[in-house]
Amino acid sequence: MRCAALALLAALFLSGGAAPSPSDLVAGSPAEAWQEVPAEDLLILDFAGDRRLVIALAPAFAPTHAANVRRLVAAGWFPAHAAIVRVQENYVVQWGDPSGKAPLPSGIVPRPTDGYERPGLPPAFRPLPFADAYGATVGHAGGWAVATDGAAHWLPHCPEMVGVGRDMPPDTGTGAELYAVIGHGPRHLDRNIALVGRVVAGMEQISSLPRGTGALGFYEAPEARVPLVAARMATSLPEAGRPRIEVMRTDHPVFRAWIDARANRRDAFFIRPAGGADICNLLPPVRPAP
Amino acid sequence: MRCAALALLAALFLSGGAAPSPSDLVAGSPAEAWQEVPAEDLLILDFAGDRRLVIALAPAFAPTHAANVRRLVAAGWFPAHAAIVRVQENYVVQWGDPSGKAPLPSGIVPRPTDGYERPGLPPAFRPLPFADAYGATVGHAGGWAVATDGAAHWLPHCPEMVGVGRDMPPDTGTGAELYAVIGHGPRHLDRNIALVGRVVAGMEQISSLPRGTGALGFYEAPEARVPLVAARMATSLPEAGRPRIEVMRTDHPVFRAWIDARANRRDAFFIRPAGGADICNLLPPVRPAP
Repeated sequence: MRCAALALLAALFLSGGAAPSPSDLVAGSPAEAWQEVPAEDLLILDFAGDRRLVIALAPAFAPTHAANVRRLVAAGWFPAHAAIVRVQENYVVQWGDPSGKAPLPSGIVPRPTDGYERPGLPPAFRPLPFADAYGATVGHAGGWAVATDGAAHWLPHCPEMVGVGRDMPPDTGTGAELYAVIGHGPRHLDRNIALVGRVVAGMEQISSLPRGTGALGFYEAPEARVPLVAARMATSLPEAGRPRIEVMRTDHPVFRAWIDARANRRDAFFIRPAGGADICNLLPPVRPAP
Repeated sequence: MRCAALALLAALFLSGGAAPSPSDLVAGSPAEAWQEVPAEDLLILDFAGDRRLVIALAPAFAPTHAANVRRLVAAGWFPAHAAIVRVQENYVVQWGDPSGKAPLPSGIVPRPTDGYERPGLPPAFRPLPFADAYGATVGHAGGWAVATDGAAHWLPHCPEMVGVGRDMPPDTGTGAELYAVIGHGPRHLDRNIALVGRVVAGMEQISSLPRGTGALGFYEAPEARVPLVAARMATSLPEAGRPRIEVMRTDHPVFRAWIDARANRRDAFFIRPAGGADICNLLPPVRPAP
């Protein structure tokens, strides 16, 4: 099947016109270039106003924070207490308990210490040949964008990434307060806050919310908040009603071709390939399962 | 006055607590650390729904495109023909003539060739010591973030930057179709599209618009478009009614301190300074003139 993918690429390149665009490559990719996000890791958040967010949890990168989120979901804590409380332009959309006082269910680990970075390199890590302004080596592993300094690795703060709000150190948050990055990736938060997943559907539902007018983009009027009306893991839905999301395999040749096409646009619109690309412009493509 | 600024910085660092945050530095900066955007370069766009955008034009970087925009404004072309037609998640908000057929006023240069890059280095260019994923040297000059390969320089595609929509090459656009970047900076567009300015106020008015559901985020229903109801240069408003915007001087010591604070957060919330920062997270601070 690798041969089929390569034949496809060759056909695209030899099609007589300009080189394929990144979206041409995604559209023409074979089924084997994709992996489905396991239903056990798929978190579905329904906010008021029919705004649905689907998040792929990242237990390999923030195991205890991810376990906390699962516990909060199982206990029904989110719809009982949480709302979108903050939308800061070019930064984050954040949801949690506006009072900050709702008791957490039992079993929640208060200050996990394993969510900022993980030791060594992740399995099948493939570094990019491009520089990183934050001094890391950046690349991909297992369907995720990853940064590393050789000794440890972590998820980078890019748009769509979901982080765990916290108070001052040594607090590391629990998972009861979460945010999604909107705008240019605030990578200075890397290894200062745990990232627990990525929004894989519905980003436009929250990035288009009105920005808060208070400090840090907090909504000043309680009625501006957007209540979280349901939070469920996909596994708790009947199979036919589950969202199914696929992520491009980061070890597949089509993904390498896609990276090259992103870094060196040669489709007809472009006159000058960039010769590089930022890791936050190289999050693996996602799509609804066909 | 430089001494006053340095004394202020020393006081902040010696205040006994954590190091100042970037916003501490902005709040504590002296008046001489700022320069006002000339009223001649300040473009005010009023969209339906009381959405006001203020744009600092960049004639030094795209002289003919900027001159075209001024002509279009002077001729009243924008409110007669333009609307927001496209909002693409994590990419751009774009406005222009939905029909693409409205005749342009006389004097508009159809395909300016001087807006993609400018020769040499800009006056007083100060490079950053951080790497760039796109292989450029990045830094600042005259209140702007700038990228260069040594032979030429250009504005980088970061959030808030305003670009000139165009058709396939050799078209370079006129300025009648414009967009503002939302989301992670699409730097692959650098030197493929002319950037003609930066949104210096009102970004949140357009970044929170609903995303278009058509291809590339175009609005499918004409009634979803957001009409442009007025487009004026600040000089055409009575002096008392003009927005006045200041940009931090990129040759001032406070700006150097701000860059260092952005790249190495040492304020109380942070446990680990990043040691670098992306140029798109280092656009010079702007503020309403006090």
